[in-house]
Amino acid sequence: MTDFGRTTLPYCSFVRPGDDRPRVGIGVGTDVMDVTDRSELFAGGTLDRLLAAGPDGWHDVREAANRWVDEPGARAHVVPAADVELRLPFAVADYVDFYASEHHATNVGRILRPDGDALPASWKHLPIGYHGRSGTVVVSGTPVRRPHGQTRAADGTIGFGPTQRLDLEAEIGFVVGAPSCPGEPVPVGAFADHVFGICVVNDWSARDIQAWETVPLGPFLGKSFATSVSPWVVPLASLAGARVDPPERSVELLPYLRDEEPWGLDLELVVTLNGEQISRPPFAAMYWTGAQMLAHLTVNGASLRTGDLFASGTVSGPSPDEVGSLLERGAGFLADGDCITISASARLADGHRIALGEVDGRITT
Amino acid sequence: MTDFGRTTLPYCSFVRPGDDRPRVGIGVGTDVMDVTDRSELFAGGTLDRLLAAGPDGWHDVREAANRWVDEPGARAHVVPAADVELRLPFAVADYVDFYASEHHATNVGRILRPDGDALPASWKHLPIGYHGRSGTVVVSGTPVRRPHGQTRAADGTIGFGPTQRLDLEAEIGFVVGAPSCPGEPVPVGAFADHVFGICVVNDWSARDIQAWETVPLGPFLGKSFATSVSPWVVPLASLAGARVDPPERSVELLPYLRDEEPWGLDLELVVTLNGEQISRPPFAAMYWTGAQMLAHLTVNGASLRTGDLFASGTVSGPSPDEVGSLLERGAGFLADGDCITISASARLADGHRIALGEVDGRITT
Repeated sequence: MTDFGRTTLPYCSFVRPGDDRPRVGIGVGTDVMDVTDRSELFAGGTLDRLLAAGPDGWHDVREAANRWVDEPGARAHVVPAADVELRLPFAVADYVDFYASEHHATNVGRILRPDGDALPASWKHLPIGYHGRSGTVVVSGTPVRRPHGQTRAADGTIGFGPTQRLDLEAEIGFVVGAPSCPGEPVPVGAFADHVFGICVVNDWSARDIQAWETVPLGPFLGKSFATSVSPWVVPLASLAGARVDPPERSVELLPYLRDEEPWGLDLELVVTLNGEQISRPPFAAMYWTGAQMLAHLTVNGASLRTGDLFASGTVSGPSPDEVGSLLERGAGFLADGDCITISASARLADGHRIALGEVDGRITT
Repeated sequence: MTDFGRTTLPYCSFVRPGDDRPRVGIGVGTDVMDVTDRSELFAGGTLDRLLAAGPDGWHDVREAANRWVDEPGARAHVVPAADVELRLPFAVADYVDFYASEHHATNVGRILRPDGDALPASWKHLPIGYHGRSGTVVVSGTPVRRPHGQTRAADGTIGFGPTQRLDLEAEIGFVVGAPSCPGEPVPVGAFADHVFGICVVNDWSARDIQAWETVPLGPFLGKSFATSVSPWVVPLASLAGARVDPPERSVELLPYLRDEEPWGLDLELVVTLNGEQISRPPFAAMYWTGAQMLAHLTVNGASLRTGDLFASGTVSGPSPDEVGSLLERGAGFLADGDCITISASARLADGHRIALGEVDGRITT
């Protein structure tokens, strides 16, 4: 249960017990304030209309939300988050996953290519990414069924069965609100004009299925069975105090990728396995920022739609207790019944730390 | 302009001149029969509701369409296809592209890996595929803007600019109607329970952008700028007479991929560049069938949604005049102003050939 404090004001979609109609809520402390009837933007019961409203709409609603929380009678609209069912907050249009942590990419490269370069040749020149399956993005709490698939053993034998190397990937997702036009790249400086906010992502991965299928067209069934997201979308507006410079770049970037404003974010993820904390990946160590990912994603003229979700890729820090996947941890993979929770918080420039929500999932057969 | 004959009865979404409301049409000869008001399934003006209706609904509507075409007064509902604007026929959910032609994969492998194995190790064991960008799937006739992007020259110089190696890929797309449940693979035998029909696809590709970005996560910006589809969706029901055995399999397949009924399709694609025919790719030569692609796509438990589109990958035959891409043809790439048209037809067991529609696009700057 996330305690959001008073200033974050994240959004969710929820249903009350015994009522199937989805509603829009704002997180205040450990409660959900029902704001469905406060704005036409919430009438659909999901965040879709709010996302589409664009920066001015986002600003106006956030200003209003600040008033709603403080007005007399506000308690009448509040219900404990524990008493409602949180739903997938928005309709996911396209889902893209990046590979933006140098520590993660290096760790994985050393494992998969012990005799070669750890980083792919293009890695420092562009944020590598690929499209995933938006239809299997599920909300936190949805059980994750262990996928079956085709694998090849070290001796070359082709096998089929439940994955034996089921992994998590702790990530941050960026939620696109305002669409863009075909043929018109979104520059790094326009990041906040299009991206509404962030969520926490677990990009579940079956390493044995992925290894066999991945050459030459990349991950497919090793990823497409499920991607879990937190039910809360935290507006970028509440993260202004968490913006930091990204790590120093060791290669000169093409103009379209050059940082203008600092869009590094001082976030900390915490990964727990069956209640035991196993890692604390630091998002501030990410080589590529969300603004750079978005600029790259659109530089070929690909347009954005409301509801596009792009995730950072696994967040790993330099230390062994900061890795965002079990592959890097080297201590085995997920068993049936295991429960993974990834929570995130932001450290603001004033020293405060604010909660950003969490995503959890339990492995079933 | 496709002449559909009397028995194909493909579906489209269109608007009449001066009227923005989308309508559903059935292709008869070179005309569109407006059936919008004939069924609640067409009330939305796109094929979305029809797709969701499932096999019984598809059957009933097709039976009815056969009556509508012949009934007195039918001409009152007909307008020449040339007089309407054909729209994207359905909302694309997830878009997946396969790599199912052995001739294409071998040709490409020889070009990209002249000293290695032409086919990737897994190629004969599973239909290799990846997710593409559904938000940039556009209808035939939409201009295709030459994408800009990052490339690396042979001397290692990183450059940026308009692609110099813009290519087409002639493909067939399969349109999913009936959804499936998470965790429940769709067996090869259930292909026609979920797939409503086919369309013609041009999966535009920027080879220089693709080459630099593609290791290790596969194609991304080299493909995501645009994928064009024909405005007509041809029901599988009209292709019963075109079903043939797929090529002999040289490797024993895992049970989930074994052919039950023959789902090879005797289709011929014709590619024209600025009106000149440059290739006739034969779809019957495809190694993997649509039924196998679907079984593989879902074997990990990934669910299907109405509107999912999966394409075959480039269709190439054994002969140089049967290749489905310019890369394989070896005679240069697309220039600004070039227009590519890909049409498809099916040869039925009774010797008749039926038209399946076409997809075209012109390159702009």
